[in-house]
Amino acid sequence: MATLVAPVQHSHIEDAKALYKACKGWGTDEKAVISILGHRTAAQRQQIRLAYQNLYQEDLVKRLESELSGAFEKAVYRWILEPADRDAVLANVAIKKACPDYHVIIEIACVHSPEELLAVRRAYQLSYKLSLEEDVAAHTTGDLRKLLVALVSVLRYDGPEINARLAKSEADILEDAIKNKAFNHEEVIRILTTRSKAQLMATFNRYRDDCGTSITKIIRNAIKGAGTDEDALTRVIVTRAEKDLKVIKEVYYKRNSVTLEQAVAKDTSGDYNAFLLTLLGKAD
Amino acid sequence: MATLVAPVQHSHIEDAKALYKACKGWGTDEKAVISILGHRTAAQRQQIRLAYQNLYQEDLVKRLESELSGAFEKAVYRWILEPADRDAVLANVAIKKACPDYHVIIEIACVHSPEELLAVRRAYQLSYKLSLEEDVAAHTTGDLRKLLVALVSVLRYDGPEINARLAKSEADILEDAIKNKAFNHEEVIRILTTRSKAQLMATFNRYRDDCGTSITKIIRNAIKGAGTDEDALTRVIVTRAEKDLKVIKEVYYKRNSVTLEQAVAKDTSGDYNAFLLTLLGKAD
Repeated sequence: MATLVAPVQHSHIEDAKALYKACKGWGTDEKAVISILGHRTAAQRQQIRLAYQNLYQEDLVKRLESELSGAFEKAVYRWILEPADRDAVLANVAIKKACPDYHVIIEIACVHSPEELLAVRRAYQLSYKLSLEEDVAAHTTGDLRKLLVALVSVLRYDGPEINARLAKSEADILEDAIKNKAFNHEEVIRILTTRSKAQLMATFNRYRDDCGTSITKIIRNAIKGAGTDEDALTRVIVTRAEKDLKVIKEVYYKRNSVTLEQAVAKDTSGDYNAFLLTLLGKAD
Repeated sequence: MATLVAPVQHSHIEDAKALYKACKGWGTDEKAVISILGHRTAAQRQQIRLAYQNLYQEDLVKRLESELSGAFEKAVYRWILEPADRDAVLANVAIKKACPDYHVIIEIACVHSPEELLAVRRAYQLSYKLSLEEDVAAHTTGDLRKLLVALVSVLRYDGPEINARLAKSEADILEDAIKNKAFNHEEVIRILTTRSKAQLMATFNRYRDDCGTSITKIIRNAIKGAGTDEDALTRVIVTRAEKDLKVIKEVYYKRNSVTLEQAVAKDTSGDYNAFLLTLLGKAD
């Protein structure tokens, strides 16, 4: 389901040397950076970073940050980090903004498996000497705080078991809450933030059967008509290229009747464009 | 700081055989059960359980449950489980009661290190196919739910770093909340449920310096004048015998001017009494 095209065999020492060469002297060979890093898995990228450190006593991440710029730099920086560290950075940047990007927090909390979310929370503590829930709680208030803190703190049960009786009773609770427009209803927050994904699917299916309409619509509006949200675009492509970006591409095409590659090609340019298209699986 | 007296060397096969003998035929040799299990560490108890299973194709825990009874049975059952499994059982029993024992949930959430609490949450999921936070949320409402769900869900930062400026500002928030008797104040819940223990100590110290009184008093009222809360007594002794029961004994004596052993001796009897005193470190 990944779009990333990476070789099974590669020499991380040769890769480190090639990256050193790409960064040496005036200017940077961005194409070389893309052709290497855009075709390496998370594990391979860590080996390259380690080899680079050993060969040149310098952090590859810092070097690239000083060589690259703009949206391309941001995308490469997020890409090169280990997934949990990357999400910790994304979460921290999102919550520390003057107007926090709450949807980034929701995305991190909901897209991951329980164990992956736990890894992000551990990475966050290592980097920031605070817990993720602590920072989220300190930068939010009211119902939003209730929802977000619970979403990032929960270790959902990950098993396949569902309780049909519970699905019925909680579908009723959701129906009542939606009818009465009580969207801040504590019970709604409780259900959404504590039940397992399997149980929630059962509840949502039950709701759909009872009410005739689906309770959820997954809306990804990273690319809008006017202007591009580069942060969101980078985030989705970088975090999903090794996971399920192929599926996202398919859904995107079905919804929009243009391919995600076409949309990216139209709304971005230069090295940033080339890098995203590489991660989307385009042949060099 | 533990009170448990356990041999460095022991044969878990011999222990398993001795326990089998103690349970065989009519009646049970409770003294033998106490003299073995009351002197074995958590790791040793697990080895004995495994050896018993291999020797007799029977679960020692189930066998003991059928042989023993009352408060003694409960105490032995809790004692023989691995600490995380034991806390999962304690939490489940507490939250499923018609009138839930909320203080048990608070105790489990607050006494443990962040990693220990996480181990309890994992054990809970394995045993009950639901998350701890899910069950706590489903059996509580209102402010109590907010507090308890947050307490069991948090993975507090465990480092020693403190932020003095933050301690001052959050001590002020606590002072305001207490003055205005707004004990359900969202900010109070946020501070107590997300900050690291080191940061909370700094905040509480700051509060004491500013207000002249201490914000916390640790009150253990497991043994009251009239009647004994056997569940609480068992819980404290069984869960702390290998950790810090020695310190608890000292604090108990300072507060009550009788030793914890004297209080236990006065308020309990029989095998239950003998077992608790063994875990309290009394020589056989």
